[in-house]
Amino acid sequence: MNTTYRDIFKWGDKREQPVDKGTLDVIKEKFGFTDDDFSQKYITGEEQVALSKPVGINQNLLDKLIAIVGAGNVKTDDYARASHAYGKFYAELVKLRMGEIPSPPDAVVFPKSADEVTQIVSLCNEHGIALTPFGGHSSVTRGVETPNGGISLDLTKHLNKIIEVNSVNATVTVEAGMFGPAFENYLNSIGFTCGHFPQSFEYSTVGGWFAAKGAGQASTGYGKIEHMVLAVKVVTPAGVIETKCYPASAQGWDIHQIFAGSEGTLGVITEITMKVRRYTPQNTQYASFIFKNFESAVSAMRMVMQSGVGLPHLFRISDPEETEIAFKTKGFDDTLADRFLRVMGYKSGSRCLMFMAVDGSKGYAKQVKKSVKAICRKHGSFYTGAKPTLKWLDQRYSSAYLRDPLMDLGIMTDTLETAVMWDNLVNVWSSVRNYLKSRPKTVVMVHISHVYENGANLYFTFLSPMEKGNELNDYAEYHKGLVDTINASGGSLSHHHGVGRSLAPWMQQHLGVNSLGLMQAIKNYLDPKSIMNPGGTLGLK
Amino acid sequence: MNTTYRDIFKWGDKREQPVDKGTLDVIKEKFGFTDDDFSQKYITGEEQVALSKPVGINQNLLDKLIAIVGAGNVKTDDYARASHAYGKFYAELVKLRMGEIPSPPDAVVFPKSADEVTQIVSLCNEHGIALTPFGGHSSVTRGVETPNGGISLDLTKHLNKIIEVNSVNATVTVEAGMFGPAFENYLNSIGFTCGHFPQSFEYSTVGGWFAAKGAGQASTGYGKIEHMVLAVKVVTPAGVIETKCYPASAQGWDIHQIFAGSEGTLGVITEITMKVRRYTPQNTQYASFIFKNFESAVSAMRMVMQSGVGLPHLFRISDPEETEIAFKTKGFDDTLADRFLRVMGYKSGSRCLMFMAVDGSKGYAKQVKKSVKAICRKHGSFYTGAKPTLKWLDQRYSSAYLRDPLMDLGIMTDTLETAVMWDNLVNVWSSVRNYLKSRPKTVVMVHISHVYENGANLYFTFLSPMEKGNELNDYAEYHKGLVDTINASGGSLSHHHGVGRSLAPWMQQHLGVNSLGLMQAIKNYLDPKSIMNPGGTLGLK
Repeated sequence: MNTTYRDIFKWGDKREQPVDKGTLDVIKEKFGFTDDDFSQKYITGEEQVALSKPVGINQNLLDKLIAIVGAGNVKTDDYARASHAYGKFYAELVKLRMGEIPSPPDAVVFPKSADEVTQIVSLCNEHGIALTPFGGHSSVTRGVETPNGGISLDLTKHLNKIIEVNSVNATVTVEAGMFGPAFENYLNSIGFTCGHFPQSFEYSTVGGWFAAKGAGQASTGYGKIEHMVLAVKVVTPAGVIETKCYPASAQGWDIHQIFAGSEGTLGVITEITMKVRRYTPQNTQYASFIFKNFESAVSAMRMVMQSGVGLPHLFRISDPEETEIAFKTKGFDDTLADRFLRVMGYKSGSRCLMFMAVDGSKGYAKQVKKSVKAICRKHGSFYTGAKPTLKWLDQRYSSAYLRDPLMDLGIMTDTLETAVMWDNLVNVWSSVRNYLKSRPKTVVMVHISHVYENGANLYFTFLSPMEKGNELNDYAEYHKGLVDTINASGGSLSHHHGVGRSLAPWMQQHLGVNSLGLMQAIKNYLDPKSIMNPGGTLGLK
Repeated sequence: MNTTYRDIFKWGDKREQPVDKGTLDVIKEKFGFTDDDFSQKYITGEEQVALSKPVGINQNLLDKLIAIVGAGNVKTDDYARASHAYGKFYAELVKLRMGEIPSPPDAVVFPKSADEVTQIVSLCNEHGIALTPFGGHSSVTRGVETPNGGISLDLTKHLNKIIEVNSVNATVTVEAGMFGPAFENYLNSIGFTCGHFPQSFEYSTVGGWFAAKGAGQASTGYGKIEHMVLAVKVVTPAGVIETKCYPASAQGWDIHQIFAGSEGTLGVITEITMKVRRYTPQNTQYASFIFKNFESAVSAMRMVMQSGVGLPHLFRISDPEETEIAFKTKGFDDTLADRFLRVMGYKSGSRCLMFMAVDGSKGYAKQVKKSVKAICRKHGSFYTGAKPTLKWLDQRYSSAYLRDPLMDLGIMTDTLETAVMWDNLVNVWSSVRNYLKSRPKTVVMVHISHVYENGANLYFTFLSPMEKGNELNDYAEYHKGLVDTINASGGSLSHHHGVGRSLAPWMQQHLGVNSLGLMQAIKNYLDPKSIMNPGGTLGLK
């Protein structure tokens, strides 16, 4: 039985995963920590959840909700409300540790069908009650907070089933609240794969992927989620919008794409039809390379994407600092192989790792790998075989769960990401790194992990000791400077995390008054009383 | 100097292309025509253009337009107005032949810059004057008509230049009024290709491609135009919307995609940034196949698309009747090779041609061709080499120009197309064919020409003798039944021709009231006085 704040912010069953020795050694070296610093945990949030804000909607309305979904599917207890108050944004995790939940939802409701969702949206619209769709709450952008209270609509309990598989079309229609593993396991069992593997995969839902416009680690070959979704059913206050499924069309602009990135502000996505692909892991080819510097790795990657050789599905570069940390934490530093690499000119502090994997038919996968190897060789890389990529894949989800034990050690750790065109990539990388590095004792690891013909995503991970006693302000100021730097350097506000409330303040300046005005007009039409995920999400009123 | 109706409906410099003997023979056989029927042309439209409707906007406003663009860039003469009254919809061509132009624009304006466009949009909005953007007027959906008169804004005279090429990003920013050949020739000269080759290529513009959401003959590999465009600049009555260029992003839903398929109803697209690819024709691989029947060809095509073998860029199937006509018109019928094929079981009336070409790196193109050949072999096809595909490519644009000489012979000829999922393809093909064939003496040729993992496009071409004296009503009735049949069988209203006014009456029923309502709300916000391409385009008010 979950009862504490810690139960909320921890990730499911990976609850007390320890920090490995390699990482602890890096922390000692970089931050000057000693074993003493590791002897006790900092603000652990082990207190029982107790909310100060009472339920703000009246019994009459609760009764109406119960009439729709049944008594067992309306929760107003403190733990239910607290566990639906936040996603996984760093400052939210700090607040949970501190027991600060000033604005939880008033009730959590678990609908059993799209029809019930329609009744709930209608009821909330009639009474002006805020309604926030809730999936895996892996949002790192304050996307599921409830500043106006109201109802958190949790789709994961019941709306989590496959509706239809069409093997001829290679499509699947699925309820929005289905979690990644259940979805993928089912697809694998019938010979397909969804191809969408965000780091949050184990604790995120199909509906959340689309609502926040996510990208999986295989996006270079499979596309982002908005490239995979062919049709949606969305319950909006203005009515149900259900689009038809075509491979492509020219019947005006695409309505279903307006809900990609809508982040709950326009309505509740209840069903999604997405394309799926043959599951042929036996054909997958893996490779890894080490480059002498970041620039040559980036140049090789761009050449692969622009040379018409086919597409890797996984394609990553770790920048010099991330490569250095990987070598250290994986115990590769100073091994014979490491010394050999140094002698060959692949020096720590400038060398960069590249991982690649490619799915498809046997012949296709081999051909792509061969081409990638040829291009990388021309860029002065050293081929390091399949193993490093396979090892990286082993921990593809679990590295995210390290954040909690690191916070236990008093370490601030967060990530931010941006999409950039190729000609601006190194500039954004170095501007943002310089900013992050202006903070003393800060480890900054950067990778490129979603790649296109015309540009790529830059993903920044930083670790730095918390300013104890001033954790939230310290973080807020640092975060603001970081987003300012990305924005000023020409990166997008996000490539796949979404905007939520954490990036909302930059939206108008970034998109322009007229583009945001158009978004607001769409919101006003579909949600005239602004009940859907209100309180500034996406910079909307 | 152009002066007649015929000058308007004819396609540029291919003015009096004769119908080849092969086609004439087919016409004789199918329609029972004799040489007498070919001896004179029917309603040729060779009269001098003379409009009955006077210019409906006053001199004061014309003076304001002249103040913006200069006197040479505002035309009110009959020929200028008449030549901007229609696109290339069959019924429009009949009307031009008959000299029927009841609702031409009042003036044709040729802006020299996006800034001038902004002033014109503002002026028209202030005075409630209809404004219709005009590119290559190759619309086959009544997309550029001016039922409310007003101004036809022709972008092709001045707004036809490359603004910027970014070789690192593999992108190009181009003014909307640039024609296909000028665009592609320039790109080729610097080592790139646009990859977008609609049949209208020689007489259509980049802005028109995006506004009507077109697809080129190489779309299977390069994507539709909406998959290639990364950013736009659009002048709307509510202000200028200029989106930033990213390879992908998650900053709310994509604003620039709302203008894909907007068909001039939301604003004037002045600039487009699109991705381009390396121009490597020396690597292209070609193949063609003959299948015993349509079903096995479709099945092979689907397997290619769903097997992860890479993507052909050109991928087509001609159905049995189109294959039969191709054999006859190309003089292949009853040759030794033809007799051999018949003996092998590839019988006329059921056999189907498939064309394939694939661009990319040398290794990729070879690998894809090899895989396609293997899959086609398994489906009982006979490999017919590269030549038929190369021959087809030779006439890739010019077959469209046959329409005018056929109309000279009193033959109604038109095309309609739809997007379908794989599991519905044969059903839609046969339903629509049955409908079209219910008209006596009608040749119906169908091909699949834009292919996806999840479905494809079906393209219908029909020829039938005109009902002389009742050409327009006869066509209107036949066309209505055709669209009704597509709609009822589950096809999209369009895959790449767009909607215009010819398909607008089906939009509400097809998309649903709520989806069309959302489109109307977007229109109302950007164009509150409904001045942009008004009069029912896309089913909007």
